[in-house]
Amino acid sequence: VFFGELLLRLSTGGPTRFVQARSFEARYTGAEANAAVSLVNFGGTAAVVSAVPAHEIGQACVQFLQQFGVETRAVLRRGDRLGTYYLEPAAPPRAARVIYDRAGSAFAGLRPGDLDWDAILSGARWLHWSGTAPAVGPGLPAVVAEAAAAARRHGVTVSCDLNHRARLWSATEARRVMTPLMAGVDVLFANEEQAGTVLGVTEEAAGKEAGGLGRERVERCTRLAARLRTQFGFRAVALTLRDGGGLEQGRWQCLLSTAEGTHVSREYGVGDVDRIGAGDAFAGALIHQLLAGRPGAEAIEFAAAAGCLKHSVEGDFNLVSADEVQALVRGDTGQRVLR
Amino acid sequence: VFFGELLLRLSTGGPTRFVQARSFEARYTGAEANAAVSLVNFGGTAAVVSAVPAHEIGQACVQFLQQFGVETRAVLRRGDRLGTYYLEPAAPPRAARVIYDRAGSAFAGLRPGDLDWDAILSGARWLHWSGTAPAVGPGLPAVVAEAAAAARRHGVTVSCDLNHRARLWSATEARRVMTPLMAGVDVLFANEEQAGTVLGVTEEAAGKEAGGLGRERVERCTRLAARLRTQFGFRAVALTLRDGGGLEQGRWQCLLSTAEGTHVSREYGVGDVDRIGAGDAFAGALIHQLLAGRPGAEAIEFAAAAGCLKHSVEGDFNLVSADEVQALVRGDTGQRVLR
Amino acid sequence: VFFGELLLRLSTGGPTRFVQARSFEARYTGAEANAAVSLVNFGGTAAVVSAVPAHEIGQACVQFLQQFGVETRAVLRRGDRLGTYYLEPAAPPRAARVIYDRAGSAFAGLRPGDLDWDAILSGARWLHWSGTAPAVGPGLPAVVAEAAAAARRHGVTVSCDLNHRARLWSATEARRVMTPLMAGVDVLFANEEQAGTVLGVTEEAAGKEAGGLGRERVERCTRLAARLRTQFGFRAVALTLRDGGGLEQGRWQCLLSTAEGTHVSREYGVGDVDRIGAGDAFAGALIHQLLAGRPGAEAIEFAAAAGCLKHSVEGDFNLVSADEVQALVRGDTGQRVLR
Amino acid sequence: VFFGELLLRLSTGGPTRFVQARSFEARYTGAEANAAVSLVNFGGTAAVVSAVPAHEIGQACVQFLQQFGVETRAVLRRGDRLGTYYLEPAAPPRAARVIYDRAGSAFAGLRPGDLDWDAILSGARWLHWSGTAPAVGPGLPAVVAEAAAAARRHGVTVSCDLNHRARLWSATEARRVMTPLMAGVDVLFANEEQAGTVLGVTEEAAGKEAGGLGRERVERCTRLAARLRTQFGFRAVALTLRDGGGLEQGRWQCLLSTAEGTHVSREYGVGDVDRIGAGDAFAGALIHQLLAGRPGAEAIEFAAAAGCLKHSVEGDFNLVSADEVQALVRGDTGQRVLR
Amino acid sequence: VFFGELLLRLSTGGPTRFVQARSFEARYTGAEANAAVSLVNFGGTAAVVSAVPAHEIGQACVQFLQQFGVETRAVLRRGDRLGTYYLEPAAPPRAARVIYDRAGSAFAGLRPGDLDWDAILSGARWLHWSGTAPAVGPGLPAVVAEAAAAARRHGVTVSCDLNHRARLWSATEARRVMTPLMAGVDVLFANEEQAGTVLGVTEEAAGKEAGGLGRERVERCTRLAARLRTQFGFRAVALTLRDGGGLEQGRWQCLLSTAEGTHVSREYGVGDVDRIGAGDAFAGALIHQLLAGRPGAEAIEFAAAAGCLKHSVEGDFNLVSADEVQALVRGDTGQRVLR
Amino acid sequence: VFFGELLLRLSTGGPTRFVQARSFEARYTGAEANAAVSLVNFGGTAAVVSAVPAHEIGQACVQFLQQFGVETRAVLRRGDRLGTYYLEPAAPPRAARVIYDRAGSAFAGLRPGDLDWDAILSGARWLHWSGTAPAVGPGLPAVVAEAAAAARRHGVTVSCDLNHRARLWSATEARRVMTPLMAGVDVLFANEEQAGTVLGVTEEAAGKEAGGLGRERVERCTRLAARLRTQFGFRAVALTLRDGGGLEQGRWQCLLSTAEGTHVSREYGVGDVDRIGAGDAFAGALIHQLLAGRPGAEAIEFAAAAGCLKHSVEGDFNLVSADEVQALVRGDTGQRVLR
Repeated sequence: VFFGELLLRLSTGGPTRFVQARSFEARYTGAEANAAVSLVNFGGTAAVVSAVPAHEIGQACVQFLQQFGVETRAVLRRGDRLGTYYLEPAAPPRAARVIYDRAGSAFAGLRPGDLDWDAILSGARWLHWSGTAPAVGPGLPAVVAEAAAAARRHGVTVSCDLNHRARLWSATEARRVMTPLMAGVDVLFANEEQAGTVLGVTEEAAGKEAGGLGRERVERCTRLAARLRTQFGFRAVALTLRDGGGLEQGRWQCLLSTAEGTHVSREYGVGDVDRIGAGDAFAGALIHQLLAGRPGAEAIEFAAAAGCLKHSVEGDFNLVSADEVQALVRGDTGQRVLR
Repeated sequence: VFFGELLLRLSTGGPTRFVQARSFEARYTGAEANAAVSLVNFGGTAAVVSAVPAHEIGQACVQFLQQFGVETRAVLRRGDRLGTYYLEPAAPPRAARVIYDRAGSAFAGLRPGDLDWDAILSGARWLHWSGTAPAVGPGLPAVVAEAAAAARRHGVTVSCDLNHRARLWSATEARRVMTPLMAGVDVLFANEEQAGTVLGVTEEAAGKEAGGLGRERVERCTRLAARLRTQFGFRAVALTLRDGGGLEQGRWQCLLSTAEGTHVSREYGVGDVDRIGAGDAFAGALIHQLLAGRPGAEAIEFAAAAGCLKHSVEGDFNLVSADEVQALVRGDTGQRVLR
Repeated sequence: VFFGELLLRLSTGGPTRFVQARSFEARYTGAEANAAVSLVNFGGTAAVVSAVPAHEIGQACVQFLQQFGVETRAVLRRGDRLGTYYLEPAAPPRAARVIYDRAGSAFAGLRPGDLDWDAILSGARWLHWSGTAPAVGPGLPAVVAEAAAAARRHGVTVSCDLNHRARLWSATEARRVMTPLMAGVDVLFANEEQAGTVLGVTEEAAGKEAGGLGRERVERCTRLAARLRTQFGFRAVALTLRDGGGLEQGRWQCLLSTAEGTHVSREYGVGDVDRIGAGDAFAGALIHQLLAGRPGAEAIEFAAAAGCLKHSVEGDFNLVSADEVQALVRGDTGQRVLR
Repeated sequence: VFFGELLLRLSTGGPTRFVQARSFEARYTGAEANAAVSLVNFGGTAAVVSAVPAHEIGQACVQFLQQFGVETRAVLRRGDRLGTYYLEPAAPPRAARVIYDRAGSAFAGLRPGDLDWDAILSGARWLHWSGTAPAVGPGLPAVVAEAAAAARRHGVTVSCDLNHRARLWSATEARRVMTPLMAGVDVLFANEEQAGTVLGVTEEAAGKEAGGLGRERVERCTRLAARLRTQFGFRAVALTLRDGGGLEQGRWQCLLSTAEGTHVSREYGVGDVDRIGAGDAFAGALIHQLLAGRPGAEAIEFAAAAGCLKHSVEGDFNLVSADEVQALVRGDTGQRVLR
Repeated sequence: VFFGELLLRLSTGGPTRFVQARSFEARYTGAEANAAVSLVNFGGTAAVVSAVPAHEIGQACVQFLQQFGVETRAVLRRGDRLGTYYLEPAAPPRAARVIYDRAGSAFAGLRPGDLDWDAILSGARWLHWSGTAPAVGPGLPAVVAEAAAAARRHGVTVSCDLNHRARLWSATEARRVMTPLMAGVDVLFANEEQAGTVLGVTEEAAGKEAGGLGRERVERCTRLAARLRTQFGFRAVALTLRDGGGLEQGRWQCLLSTAEGTHVSREYGVGDVDRIGAGDAFAGALIHQLLAGRPGAEAIEFAAAAGCLKHSVEGDFNLVSADEVQALVRGDTGQRVLR
Repeated sequence: VFFGELLLRLSTGGPTRFVQARSFEARYTGAEANAAVSLVNFGGTAAVVSAVPAHEIGQACVQFLQQFGVETRAVLRRGDRLGTYYLEPAAPPRAARVIYDRAGSAFAGLRPGDLDWDAILSGARWLHWSGTAPAVGPGLPAVVAEAAAAARRHGVTVSCDLNHRARLWSATEARRVMTPLMAGVDVLFANEEQAGTVLGVTEEAAGKEAGGLGRERVERCTRLAARLRTQFGFRAVALTLRDGGGLEQGRWQCLLSTAEGTHVSREYGVGDVDRIGAGDAFAGALIHQLLAGRPGAEAIEFAAAAGCLKHSVEGDFNLVSADEVQALVRGDTGQRVLR
């Protein structure tokens, strides 16, 4: 079960600037829906819980999700608008820009009691939400808490991706709202920067560090993950590490920290088709692996490779197969034409 | 001076349905901006008064207007979002559909005092607004009244196009707000249906009428216009008459009623490229003619032909020249290639 | 349950000729799938039974169907290719052209025993197939017979749309194969020409007839439908009547003949966006109405209007809502912008 | 052998106006090349004689022609630019607009002696040129005369299409240049208006005429053709007659006048995809029929139907087959999907 | 003379995945046709021998080839379908994927006697075929043998490109069919991997080798080429060497081994626009050079540079000029704008 | 005030070759207009002085400029054509190609006296022109001289960008015309190569130099700039230095030499979206900084970063904001999504 806002993404495509755009590519998305699609692509089953308006744009959003095999019966129809975001992709050294237009959306108006969590979670094994869900409306922190409480009742594992967006809320506000919600979270997805911003947990460098990924940074993140587990009582913490990008080759690496120890993936070079949704793809893939009972080392490697491949797919959804992920895990990095 | 909301229009293009759309054509528009562009195309000068967010989508909107020669210095930068509307064009017998997404826009938040009307209207000769302006936000009826008062002080003629949109507000609400605003209006643009809906003024048929345009309908509208002038004290009333469309050839005719009498245009066949903005094109063209001191018969014929040609142009703006309008007035209806 | 081949439709779009095409629009389709989508759009539930290859093009086909809410669990993965057809739309007076490339498809290779009809039909109320299904492969007539037998066991109503395609098989061959299959059919969909070609049933004109639709033709088709019912024992026969098209306005009318009598729809003018799939849309809509227990007159009017609206939608699927169909039944033919 | 300028056509496509265009569709064309392609499509062989620059745009033009089977060995490479024209298609009642940009082109610089006409015409049976050829450069009237003289030597039939373009030269200038060139012409292609403008030959109406096509107009054109034959000594005169277009259905009819009498085609309704090149398509088709020795009545019917079908094809080339033309001659006007 | 299958290539374009594609770019291609176009671009003349269906898709294929100056008179019209392949381009680290849909094609049905090889080869100097030709149909190995025998009679040089495609046939099957056909081959095109897979000829590394291109790999390939010449009696063997690609810069180098010795090209960096057809471009260019009597060192350098440039051109055809190849040979690698 | 030709740029887009192009992207441009837009984007005001034809393509050009806030009142309407250039973008190692089609343009026909320089320069502070302006027509060197004389009278600073285009004129011709015009120039924009070609000023390497950018090249350019100032009396000389590009990462660095000394920017890596107009963007940005009174070091850093960012924007205009330039100056090179 994936709970979060559904959005219309309007992208200028290619390197076109907003002021030049005479059309926008339209795709439907949402951080949690992205994770759901990632999981379904690898063979799992997933339902999205959200709210969209009853009009045709809302309906188009739901049908877009159905196409990728996600269950949409728990998507409420209400309100007048679907949240939107405008995307101008990066053209390095020029950065990608996002303009959020999410105020007043159907989802933002949700309040406790609007969703029947007992029905929704009945038979479920996992509930995932991310930091954008409580950020978009005043009633949503309480809805998230309500969901977490129901999950506890139903024995459902809860995961949260911090997913901090500075254009949605300030660090102060995020920390105020998110900190108490951590009590209901079993598995945390984060990166080093967001752990500091949202949860106030940082780990000092152990000495002078080289930039980029590398042993020092992995060790520091290993300590950070352990500290997060200890401080908030998470069963597991999964961190993503990034470096480069822009004019340089981007690098990507992930780790999973549990009571049994820390598993670190290989370092992957990433492409530059579309990096939005990579964290969500990682989360969906790791949830898939953990639900399938994979050992930690195998799970984190699969999830890291899945997040790496997301960079090669247009749109926020990670439309890659388990076979493709496993080929990358085995070291096949696309030099050949498969024919 | 044209006062009203600026919008982003997102159209599926062609006959594509919302649920099929993977991209949207993007154009910036607004009922009053449309009228302004129409007037500028015929050689006039026009300024748009509105509000857009400071971000790149707001800026793109302003630059889109600049391209067509409209003055944009009085467009405020404020708020977080630009009003949007989604358009699925008609594919007869399937009707065109519009989904408004205008709540919470930069313009909708305007309140009296936000605009310096004395500066804006200094040196101006005409102020135009339409019924969508007071419909979109609670402060806007008062802003319109404030503008009308300033116009009176500066000796500026004020025109209003009723422009009722049932998806923006109910007939009851529209009548409650619009009726008192009519006191500040010199020239009214309307059609028969909207005169009834918004102002409660209707004219009984003089007997059994044939459908369609034709003598009876023109006579009834002539009486209606006179009644509107009498009842509200307008100096002039301009009405548009439509028939057909859909699978049938659309027909279009206009009339202008003043104290000196009523001038009726010829009846024009219209094309089906894009009918949105035809009324605005008519209004802008008639304002252009009246400001240029054209006699009523010539003015209404020019404006009717301008509105007719709008149906042949993609987007809400009437990108046709005075030469093209005059060619149509002379009866040239596009059978030849000009080469 | 809708049984038939799934195809990739590659259309040049617009009036582009095959030799000019540098790209093809790609959509997935199939006569029976079209009917299924029509039914689902009006609120029903439908499953498609077919076969596609396991590769990504087969998977894309299945996901395309899922998007519109059709159940796809009974679509087998087998074989190497998905049947394809190339479409060059009409540009009157130039006709639309179709090139079939269906030989050797996954579906064409089906043989009796490949599908578990008892499982498929368990809980179902209706089974629909069309004349293209037995046409594409040597094993398929027997598969259709197998399905019909299972339907009888499960008390499932069976309908067939004659759907004769001269580029798939000859009239002689079609008649040889189709005639015995009629024994398993309860409800027949056809038109006057195909009844003659495939079933050898024609009805003489009662005298000198005016061309086009009109009373004489309706009466003749009424007699034809009755004769078909009598001769083959169908519970109901639904006929579509067409006239015009090309440079003239197309006209469309439908009738339903049962033991209680014949119900004839109004005559509808049709648009020219895309007429492919209109018969399938009609069939899906009529099945929906009959399953919902609508009276015959209401059912045929709804289905005729649904088939009419299909002409306004790009692609083979009838993406219109029940509200839109009912608006057309009420006489609203798209002259207005719904805003 | 077809002698004339080759051009790049840059069209805004659809109803887009020049000021809105952010891209242009690019096709290569030329009045005489259009006629050549028409002839080749029907099974003939044709060579184009022209001049293009040696750069890649010139080469792209030549390869575009090759694609449709036209021989291009006699196309010189010289000069710096390829003539261009900008096209804004019609959106009735708005007319199509053409902006010529042909000054200084490779072809416009041709002078007598540049082409080896004896080599070019050796083995040829027909030479065709149109009124745009002598219009574009000072040396071209003499080149045309030179070609006609060589044609006489080689016993090659010469045809000319008046093809007057007011944006290329004035009626006065055209008449001054074209009149003496008529001495070398065996077969004339024209319409009523251009016969008057370019050759000063008109035929009075025999009384009050109804507008449109019809018996009176056909009879008047029959007299006009006879007068042209008498006055200039043409062996044959072929005229095209048009009516309607714009918002009305366009009509098209053709006649062929020889010493044996006059053959008049049926009247055809034409589509509105792209009417440019219809006269060229007619000319190429009639040349094809005359070279194939078809009787006059059959030839003019085929050529008229070919010109009619051109209106259904995008671009200036008439990409239709003899089968399609014959289907139209038989009365098949595209109501059916050929499948 | 180039003998092989002609195909329709349907590519999703850009990084779009099959499941996302709503349109396919359409181009016509074929390994041997690619080589023919490469040769023609450099000033040679070439004819393609193949078979396509008589319908419009077959005709479009032939006209596509004509555009690039290839002779198509020996392309038979027969059968019902044109072989097709679907392409999803690479988005590293995600690999490019090809789905073949070639079964039952017009070409695949060829049998000995269908082609009049004496007529086809009369006056020819070179016959080229590749390993995909015998792979697609049961009659084709015998047709290839028939062609080779005719070539011997006419004194025509025969070349073969191994061109192994695992999705067409297994290594075992390929080796069984290809080995006897080598007796009719004078010049072999291959790479190290395919020499092993198809001909069973491999060369051990001379010690521990560095990865990538480099002296060791060149020396090993030099030995391999010599061994192939000795073992099969080829007059010449041309090998291509590749490294990198995917997220790394691709590298490309070629060598030519004859009785006079081995010539090795420089190592070239390749772009990533479209690598399909690079081997064919190399083959066509080398045939061009050898037919023109260029010395081996010059020929291999030109051909290697031509194959390198193919990576910069969309589609399978190598649309580059001899001037562009020579500029690259001189070291000009595109840093400047030529203006 | 920016004086120079306005052009229509027709680009194949992406890696498409001229011979493959079936459409061209259309944008309006001009070296001096590019500089003007750059300056306006950073908050300055600029007017373009030029000439375009009165027809719709000329008008579209003017409106394109208006969109970006450039003043266009001093653009004359005259002549028949707008200069055009065709662009095939680079696909390394294949170079970008430009075909100029500027002969006979409205601008090329300008002669002294056509422009009222006193009116144009009244109130202006800066006049900029580039080497393409005097290159395109025989009257233009005198017009440039006339403008420079007027600038002197009005105390307006004059800058010139050498902007040598070998496809417009030879080095000999350029040097003959440009050298005397340097007397009227205060600020020179150039690069090392063009200083040699156009002005005959070169600087010997101080010894054996490493390739690429680097200390030796910067020092040599510093000496070159000083020599240019001394020899021609320029108040300032701004040079751009480039290296790499093609398959390698491009590098870019700029310096400004005045009597107070030389300021050298950092070295920037550039992207590969569209490098055309980078020099113009640099010039416009530096003029903006100098007019704003920025110190030399700050000005050259800002202008270099602005020119760097131009490489990331499609089209010739530098549509980036001062904020984006300053972010790059601060070292932010686009690794993050701004959300």
